[in-house]
Amino acid sequence: MRVVELEGLRSFQPDKMRKSNVFETTRFFCDLYCLEPGQAQAPHAHAGEDKVYVVLEGEGTFQVDDEFEAVEAGYAVLAPRGSIHGVANDGPDRLVCLVFMAPHPKPPAD
Amino acid sequence: MRVVELEGLRSFQPDKMRKSNVFETTRFFCDLYCLEPGQAQAPHAHAGEDKVYVVLEGEGTFQVDDEFEAVEAGYAVLAPRGSIHGVANDGPDRLVCLVFMAPHPKPPAD
Repeated sequence: MRVVELEGLRSFQPDKMRKSNVFETTRFFCDLYCLEPGQAQAPHAHAGEDKVYVVLEGEGTFQVDDEFEAVEAGYAVLAPRGSIHGVANDGPDRLVCLVFMAPHPKPPAD
Repeated sequence: MRVVELEGLRSFQPDKMRKSNVFETTRFFCDLYCLEPGQAQAPHAHAGEDKVYVVLEGEGTFQVDDEFEAVEAGYAVLAPRGSIHGVANDGPDRLVCLVFMAPHPKPPAD
């Protein structure tokens, strides 16, 4: 059985946000994003894929299209396909998010 | 922006586990499962859909095919398409899981 401890994937790097894969199949991926204060995921869009951010630790400012909202641990954000989305850790603490995307934009072999 | 507080969806019922939808699109769904002690999701399979369980609170015994494992808060479990999977809250505390499935088995209108 594939069981992953999320704390074990919690890892930061000084130059940019760190993404660690939790699971992926040909149909979706699940990553853990770890952002030091001041780090960000630049706004971007995926034509055909939805993304969900689940904030596990800290707080960040999320963008979906022309909306910006501060979201903290215990909340989930939907970035539907085609939306311009990103997240900035503009607070004083570390930010950790679980991220799901479906379908997988670059599916691995099945 | 669609932002959901997970605590606000945390809800139990006496007769069976409760599922509350967090987000869904035509491509995936994300639910919150809340199980009182003694409640379970019966083992079942989805031919084409993958499921991820993320344990947020408590502990349960997860099944994927012929494997059974006790998994607690902070861990994620993958039930790949075609696998027989389920979860039983066989401990003394409440169990809360975030569940993602992709693709959506019964997609809503886009």
